[in-house]
Amino acid sequence: QGTRDHAPAAVVLRDRLLAAVVGCFKRHGAAAIDTPVMELREMLVGKYGEEAKLIYELQDQGGELLALRYDLTVPFARYLAMNKITNMKRYQVAKVYRRDNPATTRGRYREFYQCDFDIAGQFDPMIPDAECLKIVHEVLSDLQLGDFVIKVNHRLVLNGVLAVCGIPESKFITASSVVDKLDKMSWEEVRSEMVGEKGLSPEAADRVGDYVQLHGGLDLIEQLLQDPKLSQNKLAKEGLEDMKLLFEYLTLFGITGKISFDLSLARGLDYYTGVIFEAVLLQQENDHVEEPVSVGSVAGGGRYDGLVGMFDPKGRKVPCVGVSIGIERIFSILEQRLEASGEKIRTTETQVLVATPQKHLLAARLKLISELWDAGIKAEMLYKKDPKLLKQLQYCEDTGIPLAAIVGEQELTDGVVKLRDVATREEVRI
Amino acid sequence: QGTRDHAPAAVVLRDRLLAAVVGCFKRHGAAAIDTPVMELREMLVGKYGEEAKLIYELQDQGGELLALRYDLTVPFARYLAMNKITNMKRYQVAKVYRRDNPATTRGRYREFYQCDFDIAGQFDPMIPDAECLKIVHEVLSDLQLGDFVIKVNHRLVLNGVLAVCGIPESKFITASSVVDKLDKMSWEEVRSEMVGEKGLSPEAADRVGDYVQLHGGLDLIEQLLQDPKLSQNKLAKEGLEDMKLLFEYLTLFGITGKISFDLSLARGLDYYTGVIFEAVLLQQENDHVEEPVSVGSVAGGGRYDGLVGMFDPKGRKVPCVGVSIGIERIFSILEQRLEASGEKIRTTETQVLVATPQKHLLAARLKLISELWDAGIKAEMLYKKDPKLLKQLQYCEDTGIPLAAIVGEQELTDGVVKLRDVATREEVRI
Repeated sequence: QGTRDHAPAAVVLRDRLLAAVVGCFKRHGAAAIDTPVMELREMLVGKYGEEAKLIYELQDQGGELLALRYDLTVPFARYLAMNKITNMKRYQVAKVYRRDNPATTRGRYREFYQCDFDIAGQFDPMIPDAECLKIVHEVLSDLQLGDFVIKVNHRLVLNGVLAVCGIPESKFITASSVVDKLDKMSWEEVRSEMVGEKGLSPEAADRVGDYVQLHGGLDLIEQLLQDPKLSQNKLAKEGLEDMKLLFEYLTLFGITGKISFDLSLARGLDYYTGVIFEAVLLQQENDHVEEPVSVGSVAGGGRYDGLVGMFDPKGRKVPCVGVSIGIERIFSILEQRLEASGEKIRTTETQVLVATPQKHLLAARLKLISELWDAGIKAEMLYKKDPKLLKQLQYCEDTGIPLAAIVGEQELTDGVVKLRDVATREEVRI
Repeated sequence: QGTRDHAPAAVVLRDRLLAAVVGCFKRHGAAAIDTPVMELREMLVGKYGEEAKLIYELQDQGGELLALRYDLTVPFARYLAMNKITNMKRYQVAKVYRRDNPATTRGRYREFYQCDFDIAGQFDPMIPDAECLKIVHEVLSDLQLGDFVIKVNHRLVLNGVLAVCGIPESKFITASSVVDKLDKMSWEEVRSEMVGEKGLSPEAADRVGDYVQLHGGLDLIEQLLQDPKLSQNKLAKEGLEDMKLLFEYLTLFGITGKISFDLSLARGLDYYTGVIFEAVLLQQENDHVEEPVSVGSVAGGGRYDGLVGMFDPKGRKVPCVGVSIGIERIFSILEQRLEASGEKIRTTETQVLVATPQKHLLAARLKLISELWDAGIKAEMLYKKDPKLLKQLQYCEDTGIPLAAIVGEQELTDGVVKLRDVATREEVRI
């Protein structure tokens, strides 16, 4: 359930997509690492908040207790701590596993790829954070997925807002996770969940509502820095100063047009400590696709300065910020677009089919194809002793092989090969 | 236990290796598929013989009972049956999982890559089988791993041998698995295990010994076809006729020099039905490496005509033959060779570092690097507001970045960039 096989055409499409993403990561100077699909269970405990119940565990068959990785961020932090690395720009493209109830029609699965880029190290504030946002902008632009917006918030701003609204600190995580639903629910629904299920006071909820429905750019940051309550809160002020600097850098990158400072963005994972962000595709008004793919989050990330320290025996911290591109949804969109275009993807790269026009020439085909392979040429032949020429040419047309190298009795006698262009039917003897 | 992280240099080396293997598979016209890392447990039952105890199971957390894939052959057969595909040439490169007690020093792990190429379909005999052997020959030659031999046998020949020697059919699998150890143990040891642990008669064991210690080429096949006992056995005769045809095709491919018909080769997996083979690297006599990597099997495969039928509700068979390249051992060898050579692998591909020679120029760097990224140029900068020029140039030297694009106050005024060749220190204003 929630997994799938990829047929050859899907693999080709996916590989194109991954190549674009990895190309962007390499453009930003990242090196690749690879970690095992399983981690010690204890490594994953306490990192994912409420979502931890979705972790796949391996059976206890003796030895260590293991689980499948839930994301690539925790393994990266574990890798840094284990190897005492304090400075690294890395990417990793790999599958992760979540025992979710997946809506596979919307491109959500239990086994899915993540493409992560992270910058670890103690640096001047917001420079790496701005680069992560630039990367999201580049990937989504490169892939021509249509309009998008990157929502940005800051955990300290959010915590500051909750504090000045009178939410007790013990309820910060609960309140944040409800506020985070503002992208899918109306404020009335969010408010009623805060007051009802979560037991927050109606007054506090209303005060929170005044803030978390705000979104904007540098102007909003300036406005909040002047806000009588927020400007008095140490957390909020620190977060807003970060945001101001971030927007300054994003302006230099020329990408603020797609960035929205959104006070409702919370993101579920426990480990974020600073800037957080999420990219969302926007459905175009004149989009008339037959089965519209639900438009949702296609990338997300943020700063997690405490995670590496959790894996270090001495608790040494390594500040990190990173982005994860969720390629499955993008893949669904590209797959649908390809289908609509009617383009047929070639699933092999064969350059030439070695063919014979008469019987009893298998030996000639085997000798010639062997020569071609040894010369690095991508070549196929039919696995029949005496195939009909028509069948052989038909195979070329079906699979997109552009050339047929034909050896008949005459060609053998003359020491030549007849090379046929399958599309034009032109032939040359070489 | 038995898993490892790959650091960036290892990933680069591994990617080179995989590219060579995949390049060969594509040269032979294969298309890629991808299957989930987990399979239904019931799919893996009864496919692996004694080795099944090494399967990793996932915990029962509700829902389907799952296990991690043990190889790529069973998932491929399941894929063919599920999709009713009767004809396909596919490759798959992916990690597989075995709860072995791994000797990691010899390149054996619990999580390791396999690179599989398989041909499914009803074809004329031995043509696809010969191509699989050609592929092994190409991969091992391309990678320049030194001398190697590809041992070939046939399950029917082996079964025929056991039959004419008086081994009861119920003991064929047991006897085969002991005989298979002849590559690591002497005949005396193998014989004593057959007679002692496995309870075969000493006379039968001796008769078996006369056959399974044989190896050779076409001459041996001819000799056995004349063998008074074997030639009377239907299984053996059919297998030997296959082998004769196979050697004819391998002769046309020009690769018989590396092929050895070895009657002791059995291979452990239950699903093989015809030709089986295994490639072994040969240690050179004048090899004086400091820590010699144990030389062993680096590729294997064979024909499995019954496996797909086990997954089809109506038992419809699809004959298959395939090869699996075990890249972990090859990787260990290449890693050791690289270390001996002293070559330093670049782990990033950055073309230019954007640098500033004075303070207060962060904005200029951010603007320039953004322009470079947008133009598709691989560029980095230090994440400091005011880094020293020396530090920036040192970073280029440490990480192999060939160029520095320097913007100072003068350059800003003049509207130029100073491009510096890091190695030669030559500079041009552009």
